[in-house]
Amino acid sequence: MSLLRDIGEDPLIERLLRSSPTGTYPAGPGDDCAVIDSGGDRMQLLKTDAIISGVHFLPEAPPDQIGWKAVARVASDFAAMGGRAEQWLITLATPADTEVAWLEQLYQGIGHCIRQCGGVIAGGETCSVPDGSATMISIAGTGVVERPHLTLRSTAAVGQSLLVTGTLGGSISGKHLNFTPRVEEAAWLVSHFKPSAMMDISDGLAKDLPRLASLSGCGFQLNRETIPCTQGCTIQQALADGEDYELLFAIEPDRCAALIDAWKRQFPELPLTAIGTLCDPGSGDAMEGGWDHFSARAD
Amino acid sequence: MSLLRDIGEDPLIERLLRSSPTGTYPAGPGDDCAVIDSGGDRMQLLKTDAIISGVHFLPEAPPDQIGWKAVARVASDFAAMGGRAEQWLITLATPADTEVAWLEQLYQGIGHCIRQCGGVIAGGETCSVPDGSATMISIAGTGVVERPHLTLRSTAAVGQSLLVTGTLGGSISGKHLNFTPRVEEAAWLVSHFKPSAMMDISDGLAKDLPRLASLSGCGFQLNRETIPCTQGCTIQQALADGEDYELLFAIEPDRCAALIDAWKRQFPELPLTAIGTLCDPGSGDAMEGGWDHFSARAD
Repeated sequence: MSLLRDIGEDPLIERLLRSSPTGTYPAGPGDDCAVIDSGGDRMQLLKTDAIISGVHFLPEAPPDQIGWKAVARVASDFAAMGGRAEQWLITLATPADTEVAWLEQLYQGIGHCIRQCGGVIAGGETCSVPDGSATMISIAGTGVVERPHLTLRSTAAVGQSLLVTGTLGGSISGKHLNFTPRVEEAAWLVSHFKPSAMMDISDGLAKDLPRLASLSGCGFQLNRETIPCTQGCTIQQALADGEDYELLFAIEPDRCAALIDAWKRQFPELPLTAIGTLCDPGSGDAMEGGWDHFSARAD
Repeated sequence: MSLLRDIGEDPLIERLLRSSPTGTYPAGPGDDCAVIDSGGDRMQLLKTDAIISGVHFLPEAPPDQIGWKAVARVASDFAAMGGRAEQWLITLATPADTEVAWLEQLYQGIGHCIRQCGGVIAGGETCSVPDGSATMISIAGTGVVERPHLTLRSTAAVGQSLLVTGTLGGSISGKHLNFTPRVEEAAWLVSHFKPSAMMDISDGLAKDLPRLASLSGCGFQLNRETIPCTQGCTIQQALADGEDYELLFAIEPDRCAALIDAWKRQFPELPLTAIGTLCDPGSGDAMEGGWDHFSARAD
């Protein structure tokens, strides 16, 4: 008898979808969002994401930050595809003994993040869970991306440089609740130095970089000493903590210097760091670790 | 200190949305789905809905039926607006000790319902909840409706007849898990006898009819003896059990006879019953009861 915790998230999803009626999309099921191409100048993005008490936030965390985080995670995914949010659907499942004041503060955080990242609330759902069950906030969103700006995970190529925004690691000390999704930075990137592939780092570089590389049919070589660690964090934390919500992307190496130059002028306070190179599949580094949603460990 | 169970679902939603960034839509927040009008011949429908172990299904229920129900509830909402499903996003939150075989059967039910009701799976999310927490399946969907077929809850008028499909009550004895969403019937209705307003009955006629009437600025008079009760059910059960997922709609009284005639030829096995009339607001019946999501009672 096989349990969820024994199988891991990626193999589970593959197994569940094996006989399901799925569509054919420009982005596969492993990308940040689904992309719906109806043939026009713009494509629709679809994304759903959930955060759960005791897993993604502690029950005593400030409710406005919990609401912020729930929306910001999805806004970060839209940004990582080169798009932006349009419509939000908010599902709230919580015990009937939840305080209304707590919920109001949660919604203030949700509203705050939506005002900053774009879009409007189109609908939602509220329902009770049995007393003692975890509170869950499930966010579904539609977004839009201009066709030439669409940036997948799967379209990088051997020889390209790998870059990350910001610093990695240490999210647990607060950043995981109040991070700024890189909406503005991603929009600037796809307009000025369109990456060949991009994603946001949610499960840690150690888990997410192999995903981007593998979907692009590449291996990778990381210059570990260049990884931008959050102050006080080790490289191991930068690799495996997760919930960084920074952008990871690939770009032709001959465009790197000009990009980093322009970036410094545009976003002087946010580091942009070249951390490695994509190489032939099977060669390069092997990397383990990062967050697995079911084994609930940085493995 | 006010708790969720003291406030009720509709007032809660109103309170939470008071200062939130919401859009302006053809259908308000009280309708079955949000309607996104981008100006073309077709409008997009958006809906999210969740079912939870111990609330919407018992843990020992057959997992394929649980999956069916999760999707069918949303398909029923698209149908009630005159539209159909296009893209599905499946969010699954469950303890790490859930059996993979249970999940596979759940997804078989999800796939079965999608094949029958339309659309494809575009994406999803799987995450763990703390051990002992309830399993939750949250379904978000996009749908499409031809502009002339769009049928809201809020557009009925005084003097119109009220009709329901099928029989009401007794969902707990099995129908709540294996009901057939009225996708085909609703599509036929909006093409041939377009109702002035329509919704699906999810919280019981006693709760849902006042919603349709009130959104349309009407009161209602119910002929209680005509209410089509499921075999073995009392009128009280037909009014208050909920989870019928039948269509409730309003139509000009002079079209009723022709509709019922044509319906009998088209859907000979599914009753269609005139149950009352919309009247001036403030007059007519008062009705209480039906399912409240937070007080968790048929009140």
